[in-house]
Amino acid sequence: MDSTLYDSTLSDLKDKIKSYPDFPKEGIIFRDIFSILRDPACLKSVIDLMVAKIEKLKWNDVDVIVGLESRGFILAPLLAVKLNAGFVPIRKKGRLPGVCKEIAYTLEYRSDVLEIQEDSINQGQRVLVIDDLIATGGSLGATCKLLKGLDAKVVGCLVLLELDQLEGSKNVDAPVESLITF
Amino acid sequence: MDSTLYDSTLSDLKDKIKSYPDFPKEGIIFRDIFSILRDPACLKSVIDLMVAKIEKLKWNDVDVIVGLESRGFILAPLLAVKLNAGFVPIRKKGRLPGVCKEIAYTLEYRSDVLEIQEDSINQGQRVLVIDDLIATGGSLGATCKLLKGLDAKVVGCLVLLELDQLEGSKNVDAPVESLITF
Repeated sequence: MDSTLYDSTLSDLKDKIKSYPDFPKEGIIFRDIFSILRDPACLKSVIDLMVAKIEKLKWNDVDVIVGLESRGFILAPLLAVKLNAGFVPIRKKGRLPGVCKEIAYTLEYRSDVLEIQEDSINQGQRVLVIDDLIATGGSLGATCKLLKGLDAKVVGCLVLLELDQLEGSKNVDAPVESLITF
Repeated sequence: MDSTLYDSTLSDLKDKIKSYPDFPKEGIIFRDIFSILRDPACLKSVIDLMVAKIEKLKWNDVDVIVGLESRGFILAPLLAVKLNAGFVPIRKKGRLPGVCKEIAYTLEYRSDVLEIQEDSINQGQRVLVIDDLIATGGSLGATCKLLKGLDAKVVGCLVLLELDQLEGSKNVDAPVESLITF
C-alpha cells in the first residue's frame, strides 16, 4: 500500500469512529471501534492497514498472534490468518482450562487478573500482541510480562487506537505501535 | 472443497480439540477450541470449513455477521471479511456505548443480559450469527430474539461445536448448523 493511500484511508477511518463522552464512567471518552467494523469496506481497510503497518515495522515474521479478551479477539485472529501464524488468547482469570500462568494488573478504571495457557506458546516463539486500544497500558504491560514468563520473544504490540495523552506505552516492556491516535 | 476433503479435515480438527472434564464446574466437559486455533494450519482449516458450510447452506448472501462475546468475536470477523459483510457484536450488559436493546437469558451454568447497539443493524438486513459453541442454546436463542426485535432477517446460526445431547437448537428460533458435534 503506498503511503498517500495509507494516510487517506486512515484519516477516513478515524473520522468514522464514533465518540461517546462519559462512557463507561464520567470523564472517559469512549472511542467505539464497532462503528467502523460494521461497515464491510472499513473492516477490510482496518485489516489491510494493520498488515501494512506490520510489514513496514518488519514484525511479520511471527509464530503466534496474541489477542486480549474481549476486543483483542476481533483483530488478532484476522491478522494471524494473514501472517500465517497461530492465535493465542489472554483471558480474564477462570475462563481458560488446563494449567495457566496468571498476572494481576490495574486497568484504566478497575483491577483484574489475566491468564494464559502454559502450553499455548513454546519457548523462544516470536509473538505479536494485538489489542483494540491502549489507554494506561496496564493490560498490555501485564500481557508482555506473562509472555516473557513463558520465554516467548515479544516482537511488539500493535493496537488500533492509542489515547496518547495517557502515555500507556511507557508501562509496556516492548515496542508499542498504533494505527490511530486520539 | 470436495466432500471427502471436507470430512477428513473436519475429523482431524475434532481429534485435536482437547477436552477438560469438570471445567468450569463439576459435570461439564469443556471442549477447548483454543487447542486448535493456536495451530496456523488448523486456524485456516476452521475458516475454510465454515465458509464451505455457509456456501453449501446458501447462507453466504448476508449483510452482517453477528458474533457473541467473547469467543464468537474470534470467528465472526474472519467470516465477515470472507463474505464481504460487516461485523456486529452482541455483548454483556454495560459494555456497549449508545442506545442499546437488551435481553435477559439463562445460560448453561448462569444467567445474564445481552445487548446490541440499536444503530448497528438496519431493518431488513440479512444476518448470520456465529458462535464457538451451542450447549443449551440460551445465548443463541436470546440473540435471535434481539435481532428480530431490530427487524433483521436471521438467515441462520453457525457454530464450530455442538453438544448435541443438550438439543440446544430447540431453543433457537432460526436454523442452527454446526461444524463438529460432540
